[in-house]
Amino acid sequence: MHAITIPEPGGPEALVWGEAPDPVAGEGEVLVEVAASAVNRADILQRQGFYDPPPGASPHPGLECSGRIAGIGPGVSGWNVGDEVCALLAGGGYAEKVAVPAGQLLPVPKGVGLHQAAALPEVVATVWSNVFMIAHLRPGETLLVHGGSSGIGTMAIQLAKAVGAKVVVTAGTKEKLERCAELGADVLVNYREQDFVEEVARATDGAGADVILDNMGAKYLDRNVKALAVNGRLAIIGMQGGVKAELNIGALLRKRAAISATSLRARPLEEKAAIVAAVREHVWPLIDAGHVRPIVDRELPMSDAGAAHRVVEESGHIGKVLLVTP
Amino acid sequence: MHAITIPEPGGPEALVWGEAPDPVAGEGEVLVEVAASAVNRADILQRQGFYDPPPGASPHPGLECSGRIAGIGPGVSGWNVGDEVCALLAGGGYAEKVAVPAGQLLPVPKGVGLHQAAALPEVVATVWSNVFMIAHLRPGETLLVHGGSSGIGTMAIQLAKAVGAKVVVTAGTKEKLERCAELGADVLVNYREQDFVEEVARATDGAGADVILDNMGAKYLDRNVKALAVNGRLAIIGMQGGVKAELNIGALLRKRAAISATSLRARPLEEKAAIVAAVREHVWPLIDAGHVRPIVDRELPMSDAGAAHRVVEESGHIGKVLLVTP
Repeated sequence: MHAITIPEPGGPEALVWGEAPDPVAGEGEVLVEVAASAVNRADILQRQGFYDPPPGASPHPGLECSGRIAGIGPGVSGWNVGDEVCALLAGGGYAEKVAVPAGQLLPVPKGVGLHQAAALPEVVATVWSNVFMIAHLRPGETLLVHGGSSGIGTMAIQLAKAVGAKVVVTAGTKEKLERCAELGADVLVNYREQDFVEEVARATDGAGADVILDNMGAKYLDRNVKALAVNGRLAIIGMQGGVKAELNIGALLRKRAAISATSLRARPLEEKAAIVAAVREHVWPLIDAGHVRPIVDRELPMSDAGAAHRVVEESGHIGKVLLVTP
Repeated sequence: MHAITIPEPGGPEALVWGEAPDPVAGEGEVLVEVAASAVNRADILQRQGFYDPPPGASPHPGLECSGRIAGIGPGVSGWNVGDEVCALLAGGGYAEKVAVPAGQLLPVPKGVGLHQAAALPEVVATVWSNVFMIAHLRPGETLLVHGGSSGIGTMAIQLAKAVGAKVVVTAGTKEKLERCAELGADVLVNYREQDFVEEVARATDGAGADVILDNMGAKYLDRNVKALAVNGRLAIIGMQGGVKAELNIGALLRKRAAISATSLRARPLEEKAAIVAAVREHVWPLIDAGHVRPIVDRELPMSDAGAAHRVVEESGHIGKVLLVTP
């Protein structure tokens, strides 16, 4: 098959579309003929040499895909060759074929195209596991989403609105904020011009955000704690603003607040399967019904994955950037 | 009545046993004739002028008491004058009488003396709410308890062992560690001589602690994160080692770990009542059955509360120091 390889870590040009061995569906796995994958920031770190695939994972980048089942490994039931699926991956989505643990498969939802379905697994699993399974966002509460126009952000807005929460988003341009508003965001904060701590306070009569979904890490830690409500929960899923920062434990304690930090990729199979099962139970019906949809910025040929990485690195996109196989 | 007043904040001598107005049981409250109260570190901060009582709370220190019900306010059912009780308080335990929201009352457990029952409410509510309701310690998991010989520590050891967890404790003397072992602690760490991160790793085959109950705050933050297992939960309940410290978010994220910080005193009535109800359901049967007991270092006259504060400030005690009314 063809796949994106990384002969030497580096810039977008480090991604090379070349020959690679066909994967084989092992025990409990299915083989998927990939229709599309999508770009995640972890792929960029992997390309740069900062984020090796976990042990046993494919050497090719790509944390999600859509496609058709082309083979069934031993011990798998409930799936058939030819089924249209999308899947959460530990790697290997930037390829024509990938072997996937059956617990990480989802059917393509009603009304969603096969390519577009590749935009769903990572963002839905990340948002559901963090905002709902860990931080327990409840109807009537306020969610602050940083990077509201990102793939994660556009899904977080939709899911939070679907359960009846109020949504505050940050983004860096008027156009991005307008797209967040179209998806249901209630309060728009341009982080280049406004202080999100002040804006959250204003939007909540001083109470603060019950849940914050954060991709910035160190840079926002102190302000995120300031923006939290009493009993608030800060869910960190990225460190685009650095790894280490001073934590004001006193402020956290006065608010009886909590901080979690997670990533999906390194989770063991059983945890991923539990998240995917929860997603299928709670989120898939919302997508089937048309209340929540994948937000796709553009589709590019997988062989030109470098161009797709440039788009994401320049933050010019809204929603997900897809990579489509030939 | 008589009560401990604090005419001027300061050292132990600032605590003055004097005349004070009798409290009145308001709507939803009962009046308790206090038999005993117990010293908490928050009382010392209040004495020093660093921790004002929350709005509406008694001006007298004392976050827990035992005694007999002497009056019933409007809207209270299920309690009668003469009942022997203990209670979680927002303040006012260092007094001959105190008004208590009915949701914060507990019966004196079987086999526990009336004075000794004053040692229970704060430690049981703190340990249960943090280690079990927030951090969800499960059978077979490992709990690290800092200050294992404190009132909180001695209760955390007993409750964690009662649910089938492994317990690692830190303390500063051999005698304190021996008392922890008598209560069931599996692994003893003398923090003056040993590194608790190393000792936890050794005791868990490198896995780390699933839950840490911490009273040190800033001083231990980085090492606590290092000592956590994957999916670990750090529950901070005190800041004896300072308020601000650098947090390694990357380490937290790699472990998919979480940090919570809480205090009981500032919680609204309904949250306190929910914790007390959970304690009555889950912990009181363990005490009634003799599996868990209050650990009392000594009883001192309430009129000499300053002497009791000195004992706690010098950390010479094991378990709780009680203050008994005349």
